[in-house]
Amino acid sequence: MTSPDTGSLVDKLLAGNRTTLTGYAAQHFGWRVVDGVATVTLNRPERKNPLTFESYAELRDLFRQLAYATDVKTVVIHGAGGNFCSGGDVHEIIGPLIDLPMPELLLFTRMTGDLVKAMRHCPQPIVAAVDGVCAGAGAILAMAADLRLGTARSKLAFLFARVGLAGCDMGACSILPRIIGQGRAAELLFTGRSASGDEGYAWGFYNRLCEPDALLDEATRLATDLATGPTFAHGITKKMLHQEWSMSIDEAIESEAQAQAICMNTRDFERAYRAFAAKSRPVFEGD
Amino acid sequence: MTSPDTGSLVDKLLAGNRTTLTGYAAQHFGWRVVDGVATVTLNRPERKNPLTFESYAELRDLFRQLAYATDVKTVVIHGAGGNFCSGGDVHEIIGPLIDLPMPELLLFTRMTGDLVKAMRHCPQPIVAAVDGVCAGAGAILAMAADLRLGTARSKLAFLFARVGLAGCDMGACSILPRIIGQGRAAELLFTGRSASGDEGYAWGFYNRLCEPDALLDEATRLATDLATGPTFAHGITKKMLHQEWSMSIDEAIESEAQAQAICMNTRDFERAYRAFAAKSRPVFEGD
Amino acid sequence: MTSPDTGSLVDKLLAGNRTTLTGYAAQHFGWRVVDGVATVTLNRPERKNPLTFESYAELRDLFRQLAYATDVKTVVIHGAGGNFCSGGDVHEIIGPLIDLPMPELLLFTRMTGDLVKAMRHCPQPIVAAVDGVCAGAGAILAMAADLRLGTARSKLAFLFARVGLAGCDMGACSILPRIIGQGRAAELLFTGRSASGDEGYAWGFYNRLCEPDALLDEATRLATDLATGPTFAHGITKKMLHQEWSMSIDEAIESEAQAQAICMNTRDFERAYRAFAAKSRPVFEGD
Repeated sequence: MTSPDTGSLVDKLLAGNRTTLTGYAAQHFGWRVVDGVATVTLNRPERKNPLTFESYAELRDLFRQLAYATDVKTVVIHGAGGNFCSGGDVHEIIGPLIDLPMPELLLFTRMTGDLVKAMRHCPQPIVAAVDGVCAGAGAILAMAADLRLGTARSKLAFLFARVGLAGCDMGACSILPRIIGQGRAAELLFTGRSASGDEGYAWGFYNRLCEPDALLDEATRLATDLATGPTFAHGITKKMLHQEWSMSIDEAIESEAQAQAICMNTRDFERAYRAFAAKSRPVFEGD
Repeated sequence: MTSPDTGSLVDKLLAGNRTTLTGYAAQHFGWRVVDGVATVTLNRPERKNPLTFESYAELRDLFRQLAYATDVKTVVIHGAGGNFCSGGDVHEIIGPLIDLPMPELLLFTRMTGDLVKAMRHCPQPIVAAVDGVCAGAGAILAMAADLRLGTARSKLAFLFARVGLAGCDMGACSILPRIIGQGRAAELLFTGRSASGDEGYAWGFYNRLCEPDALLDEATRLATDLATGPTFAHGITKKMLHQEWSMSIDEAIESEAQAQAICMNTRDFERAYRAFAAKSRPVFEGD
Repeated sequence: MTSPDTGSLVDKLLAGNRTTLTGYAAQHFGWRVVDGVATVTLNRPERKNPLTFESYAELRDLFRQLAYATDVKTVVIHGAGGNFCSGGDVHEIIGPLIDLPMPELLLFTRMTGDLVKAMRHCPQPIVAAVDGVCAGAGAILAMAADLRLGTARSKLAFLFARVGLAGCDMGACSILPRIIGQGRAAELLFTGRSASGDEGYAWGFYNRLCEPDALLDEATRLATDLATGPTFAHGITKKMLHQEWSMSIDEAIESEAQAQAICMNTRDFERAYRAFAAKSRPVFEGD
């Protein structure tokens, strides 16, 4: 019996679980990675950046890959041309759905749901920069981010009811009430009405409002700040916000005791302490 | 072996699950149905519309029947004479409870809880129009609605502690924190203090404040708007807001994928698309 | 077979489940009990009242004992010298943690989590009086209270990310989002930034803001008011807010039907009714 070469086994583990996405060539939206911050640009501004079957699938696959990306620490998602996203394209999505049999309808709704799952499961904090129209599936993308910056002219509308559908789309009935409260969420989901930037800020949907011209810069700065933080620990924070969604308080506390003990074993924790003792600023490396 | 007459079997299914309530003759409150909007009027204004054993039971039974009503699409609940509801009648409820043995006490608390369950389980969105006193079980009825309109002079008080009871009445410890936040809910439930209209609006309890004179009209207009929407889908939205209360995010997303696929199979979804393509306004029929 | 002396068996039950804490001699913080209100004073003002291994353990043990204390009806927790609490002491906690093996790390994170569990499991409502710095584990203590009074100069910071750790500390990812909403909680936990008193009030973290000079008096008055209320019922309210955290609405309603039926069997409920009938103010005795 030969003993395995542990080093090469670890190499195999890492190889199967690490990738880089800086050079990823996106087909259906803009993508760039700078200083650990990836920026997704929904870029069909002439139509207010609607989603299509193809862009949904590519976003889903990309956010799934982010779980293994070593070069992306945070993500900014925004829209080109003064609007965030108008949701599923009426001609390229809603029209074709009308005639689909049930299994294919479920294929579609699961694909869109899988995008939200992928956004919640990747370790990178996601900052949505929301200007102008943010409607339907666009509102869902903003909701599925971790942090949201808006503008005074942002128009947030979960307008599913306007197209004859239910408000329960891609997790909205679970996630939106936890962000803005059950009563406000019910109003948005039943009526499909637009919420203004001021409303969204007062309700805690937006973390703050920015000038439209400064929005992307501010979102990028926030994402960059997070990218220079303890990114392994950030990934644990995000995971636990997800895991504890339907736990009891006692279960959540035990889960956090375990999760934080893991983080206390990281070098970033030691770096922070050494920096504090030396009265300097810690330089985190995400491990 | 004879093959069953499928048509007549479906008729039997429908007969057992469909009713109309326009002609319902309420005994202990006002009831009318206009254009698919049912209005419940708590109408003992000289006592600020308290609840009694009889009105509790009748409300419970009526809201349970609403699950099968084909002529009611939304519900407005309000009080006569400038107050919403003062809660359980001191003489007709609290007095008798003092001497009851435990099984009968539980019979009572389950009856009141069953009213909230029936309000949450019926498919119709419920709009509470809250003016003046909204106290005790009255506050619970408002909380158990889907949408709430208030006035500047609304006085919301979960005053159970004032009568020696706990704040955990008819689901308050579960539902209220999800509407206004855990800290504010704890204050209202422990202290029994009144929250003003402004507070209730700032906290997301009321969707908006109205002038007292316009309150019922505005609530009726909101309910009418919803009644002309895709009411089958509205019922699914309401069901999923209920179902997903304690689900994980991943479970919620799968549940919504299934629920929305059902809605994509409705004629209302197709009507919306056809109207959009024809640049007209969709006329929903709730199927 | 001899029949047991029921009286003496009940005495044994009570003896094992009742204690008094008025005379408790705290080692690592201030402690006094007046009129049923216990006050915990974090009192190392020269360091902004940090926590140490010893003070964590003593607080945990004391809050566990509160479950059996017959002389304490509510608790106020505050800090000496214009600050609430600066969190885990850098020299006395963070430094030693750097070198600990995993089992001891988990011993520490479980100890801190057990303090929050003890605060949530004791029946007494806890009022946190938060002035000045309220950071790290200090922010957690405030969060773990039932009610919070702040000041304009309160600085609330869940600064775990600043020391290389995750935001999931002592239940923060479960509890904080339910108080202030998921989006605001995510920002505080990922960035570690300070929230001002005004923000904390607008978000529902603080129930109200007070002048710094009046803060402890107002917190004590609120705690005294609650201590003169139906304290058995308050304990049930607190228990149900905890129990229902991850229940479905239907489960919560049944649980509350049972819990409220218990309260309807108390003498405080009867006292309230008798007082109402006599047009006097009820005197509650907590049984």
